[in-house]
Amino acid sequence: MLTPTALAELRGQLGERLSTSETELQRHGRDESYHPVTPPDAVVYPESTDEVAHIARTCHAHGVPMIPFGIGSSLEGHIAAIDGGVSIDLSRMNRVLAVRPDDLDATAQAGVTRRRLNGVLEPQGYFFPVDPGADATLGGMAATRASGTTTVRYGSMRDNVLSLVAVLADGRVIRTAGRAAKSSAGYDLTRLLIGSEGTLGIITELTVRIYGTPEAISAAVCPFPTVEGAVTTVIRTIQLGIPIARAELLDEVAVDAVNRHHGLDYDVTPTLFLEFHGSPASVQEQMEEVVGIGGENSVGTVRTATRAEDRNRLWRARHEALYAVLALRPGSRGLITDVCVPLSQLATCITETRDDLARSSLLATIVGHVGDGNFHTVFMVDPDSRAEIEEATELNRRMVERALRMDGTCTGEHGIGLGKKDFLRAEHGEAVEVMREVKRALDPRNLLNPGKVV
Amino acid sequence: MLTPTALAELRGQLGERLSTSETELQRHGRDESYHPVTPPDAVVYPESTDEVAHIARTCHAHGVPMIPFGIGSSLEGHIAAIDGGVSIDLSRMNRVLAVRPDDLDATAQAGVTRRRLNGVLEPQGYFFPVDPGADATLGGMAATRASGTTTVRYGSMRDNVLSLVAVLADGRVIRTAGRAAKSSAGYDLTRLLIGSEGTLGIITELTVRIYGTPEAISAAVCPFPTVEGAVTTVIRTIQLGIPIARAELLDEVAVDAVNRHHGLDYDVTPTLFLEFHGSPASVQEQMEEVVGIGGENSVGTVRTATRAEDRNRLWRARHEALYAVLALRPGSRGLITDVCVPLSQLATCITETRDDLARSSLLATIVGHVGDGNFHTVFMVDPDSRAEIEEATELNRRMVERALRMDGTCTGEHGIGLGKKDFLRAEHGEAVEVMREVKRALDPRNLLNPGKVV
Repeated sequence: MLTPTALAELRGQLGERLSTSETELQRHGRDESYHPVTPPDAVVYPESTDEVAHIARTCHAHGVPMIPFGIGSSLEGHIAAIDGGVSIDLSRMNRVLAVRPDDLDATAQAGVTRRRLNGVLEPQGYFFPVDPGADATLGGMAATRASGTTTVRYGSMRDNVLSLVAVLADGRVIRTAGRAAKSSAGYDLTRLLIGSEGTLGIITELTVRIYGTPEAISAAVCPFPTVEGAVTTVIRTIQLGIPIARAELLDEVAVDAVNRHHGLDYDVTPTLFLEFHGSPASVQEQMEEVVGIGGENSVGTVRTATRAEDRNRLWRARHEALYAVLALRPGSRGLITDVCVPLSQLATCITETRDDLARSSLLATIVGHVGDGNFHTVFMVDPDSRAEIEEATELNRRMVERALRMDGTCTGEHGIGLGKKDFLRAEHGEAVEVMREVKRALDPRNLLNPGKVV
Repeated sequence: MLTPTALAELRGQLGERLSTSETELQRHGRDESYHPVTPPDAVVYPESTDEVAHIARTCHAHGVPMIPFGIGSSLEGHIAAIDGGVSIDLSRMNRVLAVRPDDLDATAQAGVTRRRLNGVLEPQGYFFPVDPGADATLGGMAATRASGTTTVRYGSMRDNVLSLVAVLADGRVIRTAGRAAKSSAGYDLTRLLIGSEGTLGIITELTVRIYGTPEAISAAVCPFPTVEGAVTTVIRTIQLGIPIARAELLDEVAVDAVNRHHGLDYDVTPTLFLEFHGSPASVQEQMEEVVGIGGENSVGTVRTATRAEDRNRLWRARHEALYAVLALRPGSRGLITDVCVPLSQLATCITETRDDLARSSLLATIVGHVGDGNFHTVFMVDPDSRAEIEEATELNRRMVERALRMDGTCTGEHGIGLGKKDFLRAEHGEAVEVMREVKRALDPRNLLNPGKVV
């Protein structure tokens, strides 16, 4: 809770950059998920790590919860202020501090979004690969250990962050590592903070890996008569070590939604969106190999695109699939599942899930980063219908149980937040107690994003 | 310290698999470094995770230090029993439990060495890439966050471990993750344990990524007139995104040692050992590109090898370079530095280091995983000469300061152990206190490998 004294102190520090307007509070109490709006008591807009540290010291002294906020694109209620407190909105920390092509790294404040970073990198011939779809902030992406369409080739935030600056619960500032490509110096605090969802520290600055723009890129859209054919094609591709850059599945419902939303005419059937990066010869070789594997799985007519303009149009359709799908039912919000399983289990997991969905009354679609063994079911629910949320939650529960039986995870990339806390123990058992011990050690007063993860 | 009661209890549990023989104690008190022998009070040889848990419960109840021991190939005194206690030798936990080609992963007990694992994988057409040179155990490699010659392409232990089973200080057993390729479910305990050097838990089982044997492999040995030419060639190769699989530098002293040790006739000049993995066309393309870059840096006559037999001979020379170098001075032991810097700084860092070495009276050589920005100076010191160890230590201190000024690390892959504790604070500042808080939370009685890291 935010006491009047703490509020006055924060206002003294931040002036106009503290807001208690109802609009701002509401906006900071909801992410892109079905979770109910749970607004904070105030929103602050720091502009530097020092300011965040100052805010944390004040909140710590007065026992005020702190909820870091990027752009609000999380999907499990991560930013809900369930105990009140202050939303620390990092959107004004939006400067790219350094791009170092010779080291293949860049440093940015936590409020920089991935598109903004790429806007700076692209003219220099580089890019940052992690791509969760939404134009999330780098800080938020690190906090949820985000991944996305390119993870099959380039890895997730776990793999692409070299170093973090973070503010701890009591206002101390740490830098977790230098910029060397690897280090064995002490505990891996970088990876401890990545995925901690704001519960162990507030990430204020990141140094990330960047990559040279591939010499050649080509994309392919591959329709299949069945989901199994599409998934099997990707599984074989990965097993053969073909370094595919993107391998996205859209089921027939999602393709239909994308067609309607964008005025496109893809065959309404399970479809793979693929992308290949490399030298012109290697891209050609990869594409031929994958299309060959597709042929063994009854792929239809493959459409390819090599020009940037054509590829961007194609990928825009994939990226906005979530919004296209939600538009199928105006007013609905997404309850989105996120299981991830070992590759050999993926086809079975999706098939059993589709059987479950077929028996449900809910409108739902499956899209997935199938190269990672990760897929999402999007339930288009009425956020005010308890029955619909319960039905979707129950289907999700069954899906998580299925994934855990297959030695997978309840969340490949969205995180635990509020929505998956019950599953954390099912997945990790005794290890959850260890997570709690770490939490208590670093935030003994439970002020950093309380009620999330553990 | 090991009390008589605790000793009796452990003997009751383990019988013949507990030893207090002087030979065994001595063997478990020394790694491959210059650090003095510091034997434990007893050595135990558990055969299962349950047995390790049982041992931990006993040691915890009696306040007995526990030092996990793999094969003793660490380089910073990691296994020294500075407070006495029990060395937990995992060498009998040497079973490969599962190989899952369809998931590209394998599960093994912690005492399995990397060569043993590869011996199981290779007939099936797969391999485990992390290669620190020594035939270390997987548990030890995870504990030190080891990397090595293939890290430039395949990553380090941080990147190649999917999941761990570990025994905590009080005997609780945790499994840190399932086998999904990625997960956002809670804190990354896998990465917290990797690099914790036995101070947070005893790793007993690992699930690691495996890779299909590349369709084509070729190797090249490239002599250069200067170290700068060799290093610049690798830096450009990485900056251009050429997916080189290995890029090892040996300076002229190391090449000379290897020639003598193996009866070879390489030009005694700074030399790159390179390896390329991929399709036959891609391997050819990579090799031509890199040799072209070498040409801009005055490379001499390049020797290549494609047959497995020839490549193995070549790489055996590189792998045994440390032993070859130490053989230059019989009776000497290695004091080995391990700095790692951002790539753009590597040539300067090595040049300044060579200038320093030129002014020293010590016999020393530079070898390095230059694709990662990581190199080692091997000082061949008389382990009984305080003056030599002090001189080498002072040169190392200057090297670490240089690396930290360049935003690098004091250890790219060997770890902190006893030898680099002073540097940890210089590198991490306030973050070391956070590491201590984590240590206190998970091992409040300081029984797990006490005195190491933090």
